[in-house]
Amino acid sequence: MIAIAILGHGVVGSGVAEILRHNAEGVAAKAGDTLQLKRILDLRAFPDLPYADLFTTDFQEIVQDEEIRIVVETMGGLHPAYDFVKACLEAGKSVVTSNKELVAAKGDELLALARANNLNFLFEASVGGGIPILRPLDQCLAANNVLEIAGILNGTTNFMLTKMIRDNMSFEEALALAQKLGYAERDPSADVGGHDACRKICILASLAFGKHVLPEQVHTEGITEVTLEDVQYAAACGGVIKLIGRAIRTEHGVTCMVAPMILPQDNLLAGVDDVFNGIMVRGDSVGDVAFVGRGAGKLPTASAVVADVIDEAKHLSARKYLFWGPAEAGFVENYRGTAYAMLLRFACASPAEAATRLAQVFGEVRSVTVANGAEGQVAVITPALTADELDTKLAQLGDMTLLRSLRFYN
Amino acid sequence: MIAIAILGHGVVGSGVAEILRHNAEGVAAKAGDTLQLKRILDLRAFPDLPYADLFTTDFQEIVQDEEIRIVVETMGGLHPAYDFVKACLEAGKSVVTSNKELVAAKGDELLALARANNLNFLFEASVGGGIPILRPLDQCLAANNVLEIAGILNGTTNFMLTKMIRDNMSFEEALALAQKLGYAERDPSADVGGHDACRKICILASLAFGKHVLPEQVHTEGITEVTLEDVQYAAACGGVIKLIGRAIRTEHGVTCMVAPMILPQDNLLAGVDDVFNGIMVRGDSVGDVAFVGRGAGKLPTASAVVADVIDEAKHLSARKYLFWGPAEAGFVENYRGTAYAMLLRFACASPAEAATRLAQVFGEVRSVTVANGAEGQVAVITPALTADELDTKLAQLGDMTLLRSLRFYN
Repeated sequence: MIAIAILGHGVVGSGVAEILRHNAEGVAAKAGDTLQLKRILDLRAFPDLPYADLFTTDFQEIVQDEEIRIVVETMGGLHPAYDFVKACLEAGKSVVTSNKELVAAKGDELLALARANNLNFLFEASVGGGIPILRPLDQCLAANNVLEIAGILNGTTNFMLTKMIRDNMSFEEALALAQKLGYAERDPSADVGGHDACRKICILASLAFGKHVLPEQVHTEGITEVTLEDVQYAAACGGVIKLIGRAIRTEHGVTCMVAPMILPQDNLLAGVDDVFNGIMVRGDSVGDVAFVGRGAGKLPTASAVVADVIDEAKHLSARKYLFWGPAEAGFVENYRGTAYAMLLRFACASPAEAATRLAQVFGEVRSVTVANGAEGQVAVITPALTADELDTKLAQLGDMTLLRSLRFYN
Repeated sequence: MIAIAILGHGVVGSGVAEILRHNAEGVAAKAGDTLQLKRILDLRAFPDLPYADLFTTDFQEIVQDEEIRIVVETMGGLHPAYDFVKACLEAGKSVVTSNKELVAAKGDELLALARANNLNFLFEASVGGGIPILRPLDQCLAANNVLEIAGILNGTTNFMLTKMIRDNMSFEEALALAQKLGYAERDPSADVGGHDACRKICILASLAFGKHVLPEQVHTEGITEVTLEDVQYAAACGGVIKLIGRAIRTEHGVTCMVAPMILPQDNLLAGVDDVFNGIMVRGDSVGDVAFVGRGAGKLPTASAVVADVIDEAKHLSARKYLFWGPAEAGFVENYRGTAYAMLLRFACASPAEAATRLAQVFGEVRSVTVANGAEGQVAVITPALTADELDTKLAQLGDMTLLRSLRFYN
């Protein structure tokens, strides 16, 4: 019998408790031992739960309990989650977390601490909810050099964009609906600002490329500026707008970015709609592989946590290999060096004159028009340009007003 | 240093040799030890290869070599692959295979033999080529009861159907193109007859549901009867035809089938086109998760084999848990008991009369028409019916000639 504690009885933590109790037999069969949920840390009391007696508000009751070998952290946020996880690892307990903020900020340090103490620190649920991605990325693609990872990593914004694309909703309407359905929080800034996706691409990039990639090193644009007009122009280009987190291997490091991008319809991720997440891994041997599923939600996320718990239960005295090193100056290269074909939209008095001017400056451009488009606008697709090249060309255009620019995922 | 042998230097076997040699450093880092390719069994000689000296035509040189701890079987076919793999496991060597025919026919026996000898028998590459699916299914979904697995498991037929759907090619034209591009063999019957997909769904079902599911227990229809007209009618229903291998958990066992089915456009697998494979796993906690990638090809498949080799190298003295028990009478239930909504197409002199008659017999039906459809036909979508219910209703129709029936994936 292996005793387990849960820190934080919120959405995910209560789901973990539920699976451990309702699926106890199956879990024991997979783990090769019975898993006993012994303690749950929460400041609130849950007197009506059948396991109400497991609750404590005192972390010391968990960290000092030598019977508890595995601790599940589902509190979220950086503090006190970080302090508690660190204390558990120092006290000889393996840890499972679903906390992407914690892993994105402190993953290297906690992995090193786990290694030093011959323990495991697993966090499959921190990216893609219930989608198995970290373990396949680490193990199954062991024979590949990973060249790129790109993903739709935030279900809330994907739901909103899908509503804008399919149902012609405005950004504000889509956000209101997402909030009404419980997909978006009252303060939606971590989702719509791209910060949640940023943390997840940091975790994926760190694992795939071996050194910690910190959120503050990653250029992050959200979807707050995406309009219905953008959606229509993307459709006119034969694509859809998705919020993409993307990390590309470079000669000496990685470039990493979160931004709305136009995906061609035949891209593996273009059909990943609603609250689904999708992650594409490009390996030098395997080519493109995609993983799709619900990226959030109580039971999907909790099931990934429990799978990690089972894995740790089977490896109480053996280390899993999931690992990356500390962040290194220069490893994350400036995103401005990566070239993208762009959809540029300008205000102009004379579309014909503007088109001529754009062709002079950009060379070959393809113009894009939408049915019922606003007047006094011109939109073109440019060849692939780095951010610096784009700035230079835009400066050459003089007084043409750039209304909007969007990258094509290529 | 761990010595390795490869049985069969064909497409996949040569790919494995290539990755082990070109990616030696990365492989060693992941495996925690150097992997030395020591012997390759093939009846042919390859005098121009830089590793020509490794070849042997004598299996005894491999099975009796105590230094060789891991054997890769990439010969294909049942014999002598089965005999060789068995001999290797009996001689204390762990085995990796990409051979779906072998695993689908003898998986339970070879897994039991590996377990008895404290060895590993892994076969990630036997399903979905380079797509990591067996390991995620076994490990990451450990916390789920798997309710269903459905997949596009054969790249050749998916390529052909995509050509029929997108480019209006006939079955024969699509097959000729697939053969020209090297996707289909000169004798394409294992692909177009559904037998290749059948072996793969057997492996997935065995692993997910715990008992061996044999190919001969699985009702298998190929795509040889799928016509351009079917494709058009499917489109008129808002769907696409895919060759689906499907296994559904029942109260006491599983139902399993391979057949062309109409998928609604918003299904996770509907956008999996060309030579790509896609596998959907439905878990009671995680919901639907899909895995998409190239299901065949030299390097994708070889990379999955090498990942298994790395895993075995790390677990030379520890068993991996991948396992299922022997086949059991009654475990695979008759496919005729599973209800499907059907697209039925009849020849008729008077469409109006026929529609009335169909409504009388089937109750609510939705009629389907296609632009430029052949005259003297009527097509309807029925409610969900088991095969027996359908037969009864068809008998009641008397002299109406059924031209075609297709299931809707639901």
